[in-house]
Parts: sequence; C-alpha cells; structure tokens
Amino acid sequence: MNHGAQLERLKAFSDAVFAIAITLLVIEVHVPRLDTLDDAAYLAALAHLGPSFMGFVLSFLTIGALWMAHHRLFGVLESYEPRLMWPNMLLLMVIAFMPFATALMSSNPIARVPEVFYSATLLAAGLLQLWLFQVALKPGRVRADVPPEEINALRWRSLTLPTAATVALLTAWHMPGNNNCFLLLIPLLARAYAALGRRRALRHPATPATP
Amino acid sequence: MNHGAQLERLKAFSDAVFAIAITLLVIEVHVPRLDTLDDAAYLAALAHLGPSFMGFVLSFLTIGALWMAHHRLFGVLESYEPRLMWPNMLLLMVIAFMPFATALMSSNPIARVPEVFYSATLLAAGLLQLWLFQVALKPGRVRADVPPEEINALRWRSLTLPTAATVALLTAWHMPGNNNCFLLLIPLLARAYAALGRRRALRHPATPATP
Amino acid sequence: MNHGAQLERLKAFSDAVFAIAITLLVIEVHVPRLDTLDDAAYLAALAHLGPSFMGFVLSFLTIGALWMAHHRLFGVLESYEPRLMWPNMLLLMVIAFMPFATALMSSNPIARVPEVFYSATLLAAGLLQLWLFQVALKPGRVRADVPPEEINALRWRSLTLPTAATVALLTAWHMPGNNNCFLLLIPLLARAYAALGRRRALRHPATPATP
Amino acid sequence: MNHGAQLERLKAFSDAVFAIAITLLVIEVHVPRLDTLDDAAYLAALAHLGPSFMGFVLSFLTIGALWMAHHRLFGVLESYEPRLMWPNMLLLMVIAFMPFATALMSSNPIARVPEVFYSATLLAAGLLQLWLFQVALKPGRVRADVPPEEINALRWRSLTLPTAATVALLTAWHMPGNNNCFLLLIPLLARAYAALGRRRALRHPATPATP
Repeated sequence: MNHGAQLERLKAFSDAVFAIAITLLVIEVHVPRLDTLDDAAYLAALAHLGPSFMGFVLSFLTIGALWMAHHRLFGVLESYEPRLMWPNMLLLMVIAFMPFATALMSSNPIARVPEVFYSATLLAAGLLQLWLFQVALKPGRVRADVPPEEINALRWRSLTLPTAATVALLTAWHMPGNNNCFLLLIPLLARAYAALGRRRALRHPATPATP
Repeated sequence: MNHGAQLERLKAFSDAVFAIAITLLVIEVHVPRLDTLDDAAYLAALAHLGPSFMGFVLSFLTIGALWMAHHRLFGVLESYEPRLMWPNMLLLMVIAFMPFATALMSSNPIARVPEVFYSATLLAAGLLQLWLFQVALKPGRVRADVPPEEINALRWRSLTLPTAATVALLTAWHMPGNNNCFLLLIPLLARAYAALGRRRALRHPATPATP
Repeated sequence: MNHGAQLERLKAFSDAVFAIAITLLVIEVHVPRLDTLDDAAYLAALAHLGPSFMGFVLSFLTIGALWMAHHRLFGVLESYEPRLMWPNMLLLMVIAFMPFATALMSSNPIARVPEVFYSATLLAAGLLQLWLFQVALKPGRVRADVPPEEINALRWRSLTLPTAATVALLTAWHMPGNNNCFLLLIPLLARAYAALGRRRALRHPATPATP
Repeated sequence: MNHGAQLERLKAFSDAVFAIAITLLVIEVHVPRLDTLDDAAYLAALAHLGPSFMGFVLSFLTIGALWMAHHRLFGVLESYEPRLMWPNMLLLMVIAFMPFATALMSSNPIARVPEVFYSATLLAAGLLQLWLFQVALKPGRVRADVPPEEINALRWRSLTLPTAATVALLTAWHMPGNNNCFLLLIPLLARAYAALGRRRALRHPATPATP
C-alpha cells in the first residue's frame, strides 16, 4: 500500500485535531455583557477574566508545543507505521479534552482540585506523547538521512511535558493557586533536554544513551 | 480530469469533518463553576460529570475507529469515483450529529430513550459505512497491488459497527443504564472480523466469500 | 510563483471553512436535559426538536452540495488565479454564517421572517457561487483536457442554488411554514441543469450557449 | 530533513487555525428565540443584532485579509525555516482570540473599552504579522525566481494592519462608537502599500528601500 499517502493523511487528521482544540479554547472565555458605558465597569469585568486569559495563553502554548513536537517527530519518519495509530489517537483524545481542563482551572484560579486536574491532564498528554515517540523512533522507522544525535535529541525532548506536568501536579497539590505560569518555560526545557540528548549521542556514538 | 487530486480533496474534507466532530464532543461536557475552595465539592462535581466523561471517551473512540476504517478504505482505492460522494456525505452527516447524540445520552445515563437514540445513531453510521465500503470495493476501483484477502478483510471489517450498534440498541431497549461500555470492544471486534474475512479469502481464492 | 501550490492552499482553506461550518450546525441543536426516566417525556422533547433536526439535515445537505460544486469547479482549473480570491472569500463568509440562519429558522418553524432570512442567506450564497463560477470559467483558466460541454455543464449547474433559493424565498414570503423541504431536491435540479448545459454545448459546439 | 514537507505542514496547521477562528465567529452571534409569529418582533430582534452582524463581517474580512497575506508570504518562501515557528504560533494565538474580542465589541457597540480592546487585539495581530514577515523575508529564505520588487511589495503590505489598527485604536479611544467600519478599507490600503513598495524597489533596484 502507498504508505507515504497514509502518513500524510495521519498527519493531516492530527493537525486538524490540534488546530481545532487550540482554537476552541477561546469559546470557554465567556464574553461579559454589560449594560453600561462606564469604562471602569468594563475594566473590572476584563480583570475578572484574568484567569481565563491566562488559561487560554497557557493551554494555547502547551498545545502549540505539543503540535511542534508532533511536527518534528513526523518530519523524520520513513513511512506510515500502523503501530503509531493508537498512541496517536489517544494523545489526540487528551488534546481534544484540554479545553475542558483549561476552563475548569480558569473557573476558580485558587482552588486545588481544578489545578490538580489540569496538571493531571497535561501529564496524561505528556505520557502518551512519550509512548508515541518510543514507538515511532524504533530502529528502521526513521529516515536514513536523519543523524543519530537528532533522533536522540527528539527522544530526550519528549521528556519535557512529563517533567513539567509532574512538577505542576506536585505544586498544585501542595501550594494551589495561580502557579502554573512556570509552564511557560516549557520551550526552554524542551531545548535543554534536546541539547542534552544531542550531546550524549555525540559523546557515545556507538551506544547512544536513550532516556 | 485529474482524479488523484479529486480523491485527495475528498479525503481532506472528510478528515476535517471527522476531526471537527471528534473535537466538538468536549463542548458538551459542561464546566462546573463553583464558588468554593472545598476539595470535596469539586470532586463531587467531577463525579457528577462521570457520564459526560464516559460519553466523551466512548464517542471519541467510536468516531476514531470510523476514521481509521475510512483511512484504510481510501488507502486502497485506485482513483476518485463520483459514486462515493453521496454515501460519504451522508456518513459525514451522521458523524457531525454524534456530539448531539452523545450529549443526549450523557444528560441522563440511566434513561432508556437517550441510550436507544445514541445506539440508533451509531447504527445509522454503521449502515452508511457499510454502504460506502460496498460501493468503494467494487471490482476495478481498488489498486491492483492490493491482495484480494486484504480487500475481503476490509469488507468484513465494515460489519463491525453495524454488529456492535445492533447489540447496543437491543441492550439499551431491554436493560437501559450505563451499559454502552462494551462499545470499547469495537477495535477487538474489528480485528476479529478482518481476520475472518482474510482467512475466508485465502481458503477460497477463486470465489472469495463476501459477507 | 508556484501557482499549483497556491491553488492547493486555497482549496485547503475553503475545504476547512466548509467542513467547520457544516459540523458547527449541530451546536445549535440544543440538548434537552430532563430529570426523569419517563420514555414519553423524552420522546416529546425529541419531537419538539423536529424543526432543529430538519434544519440540520437541510443545511448539511445544502452546504454539502455547495462544497461538491466547489470541488467540481476547482477540479477543472488550470492554475491559481488571484481574481478567484474575493468571490471565494465572500462565499465562505456566507457559508460560515449558515449555522446562524439555520438556527434562526429552526427556532420558530412557522414564522415568516426567519424563513425568509434563511432563504435570503441561501440566495446570497447562490449568487456568490454564480460569480465565482463566472470568474473561474473564463477562457484560459480551465485545463485544456476538459471538454467544452463539461465546462458548459458546470456553468449551468451554478444556476441551481440561485433558482432554488429564489423559489424558497417567494414561498416563504407568501406561505411561511415548514416548506423548505423541497430544497432537498437541489441535487436533482443540479443534475437537470448540468444535463441541459451539456446538451446545448454539444448541439452548438462553435458558439456554446452560456446562461 | 525534508523541509518541503515541513513547510507544507506548517501551512496546513496555520490554515486550519485561520479557518476555525473565522468560522467560530458565528457562534457569538446569539440566535433570538421568540414565541411569536409577528414579523415586526422578528425584525426588531434582527435589528438589535446589527452590531453582532457588523462584528462578524468586520472580523471575517480582517481574518480573511490576514490569511491572504499569510498565503502570499508562504507562496514565496524557499523552504521551511524553524525561526518562523514562534512568530507564526503567536500570530495564530491572536487570531484564535479574535472571536472573543469581536463578541466583546459587539456586546456594546458604543462603549469605549470594548472597542479599544478590539483595536488593540488587531494591533497585536498586525505587529506579530510584521515580525513574521521580517523573519520570513530575510535574504536566502525567498525563492530565487521571485522578483525583488514583489518582495518589497510584501514587506510594505505587512504595514497595512498595524496602520489600520493604530488609527482604529486612537479613534476608539477619543470617539468611541461604531466607527470601525473604516476597517473595511483594509484591502484598499494593502494594495496602496504594495504598490508603493513595488514602485520604490523598481526605482532604487540596487538598495531597495525597506520600511
């Protein structure tokens, strides 16, 4: 069968789910409807929406980072591999669930359960992404022209979300309240992990250190 | 006309409808908005959403399985065939309707009518998918390099959803209440049907046994 | 510039808008939430949703028919033509507006204004589609291997929605109430117009009769 | 790595976000539900929705113009360039936020804060677009067959939204109330800027005047 076209279609479907979930986030930011011309009343209403704006930005960037990682991974694959189907589908399920988790967290920014629930959703996404990367980066599934250190960088990079989500989960449990902002550091953590994986592979080319 | 491009576009449009319907499911899971910091109140609210979560997972996996079947079918087609247009469009209509049927079922998990309605929607999707497969797998529409036993496996596989939905419909009618969980077995049933179809085609290569 | 890729992207964007608008229709079918196990109460609630179901089906099939026409048109084009951009964008704007017009019509199935508003929205879509077809089917923009009678069939086919919407508008004005069902005949009317255009082009090959 | 495919996928993801945001605009136009057959009551309800319709059209055309500019820019790029990822992702974030800003503005058409908020959102989109264009049009990232005056036209064109949004912001601040209509002139302004950029590049071919 034409595995190239199959891979294209799996990417297209995944892209669509990522794009829809990321755009649906805005629906949960409820528009205030005031019967006034008073500037202060509007500013107060917008300030009250602060946690919703924060949740929108946080989840947009997290889903965006997940999409970028997906984009990188599928960019090095040789061809379609049916074993990718289920980990990918389950990852997409958690992505599609993100608008709910985001709105729950934004509904009460200092309560413990919503924040733990949000971090747990991120952790689920991170672990499914890790599984997808493990399945996809098996020998023989990556294009021959991809240098081994890049493969190792990808492998290490997939530890980013599980790490960040675990920290967020523990923090939310012990000190709930508005402290998910550090998730904005995910891109930096991703780069650090990738650099680490790349360096280790270059240092030990024969037996690449996999996480 | 360039039938390859036409086929690509039909796939792209179908992918988009599948992806949007599967992602819109989350909109019907209503976010609880509590004015409390009490953990127990949040846990109770989330437990109350149990049927909605179950409905989300069930419909996500069912639509996902329908998309995977669509993906498999269009992966073996030779070229664009205008006769596929209507069965495909009607199948997409039922897929697009799934968020409503899911939310209705989740709104009252032990009432009979919502569960029967949900199963009937699945049955409609299953029968339209069966029709699409019958039209698409006619001789001359499949690429020459696809072995006949794989075509027969696809044919048999398309019996999965009609079978599962009929059982769900009868069960919902006679014993309503939270028993759609067995729909999670759909992937296993699909594999069993595919294996059966493959084996029958290999045993009787001259006159392949079609369902 | 690489006009092939530009054309692909215009198609992809249009497909996405069609697919999203067609799938968003279901959001306006409001899920009844009853606190009962009584079958009759559920059946009454579903019967009450009759006009919403009808509106969903009607608009799904109308947007579907518009997409199919778009698909046919772009299947015969030679390459990207910037003049297509605005008629296409305005057509997409009316398509994206369809969920509102549909919900308004379904909100009160026997009132005159909602039905007239719905028909007028369809008429706007029909006229923009006609404009798009006029611009796209100009000499030199169609692939050389497309027979002239097929081009004429496409031209005539684009009269379908303006015709049907005008009839719907007049009927809604004079006899409001549940009589948009005849829009389900749009596919038949499209075939009749296409056959007429094809026959006229074959009869007068030198000076093809354009509508 | 196969940069062509990577570029395709970035375009596809961006297209999907543009298409979803542009189509979600309609969700914020709330359907009036009246229990009457009185034509005048319906007409009054529709007239009351005037600002929502205006907001829908305005934001549809603005997002449409942003998409067209994106389409033009990516049509001249040589290949995938990782540095495009972040400006593009942040631009998409503001696009995805547009349905909220639009609904806020439409909720009270003569209040100052909603209109300023809307214009500021447009300005953010305009500045991110400007950044994206600066990064993308660096020497060596554009296909060799694109004439330099076209590159300069693109550069100047990207000043359109920042200019228009700044004027809208100042107007909204000093004279709030229904005066965003002039944003409909964006396409004309875009053409004027493009013509200016093209002319300047043709006049000084050695040292093209960049904005």
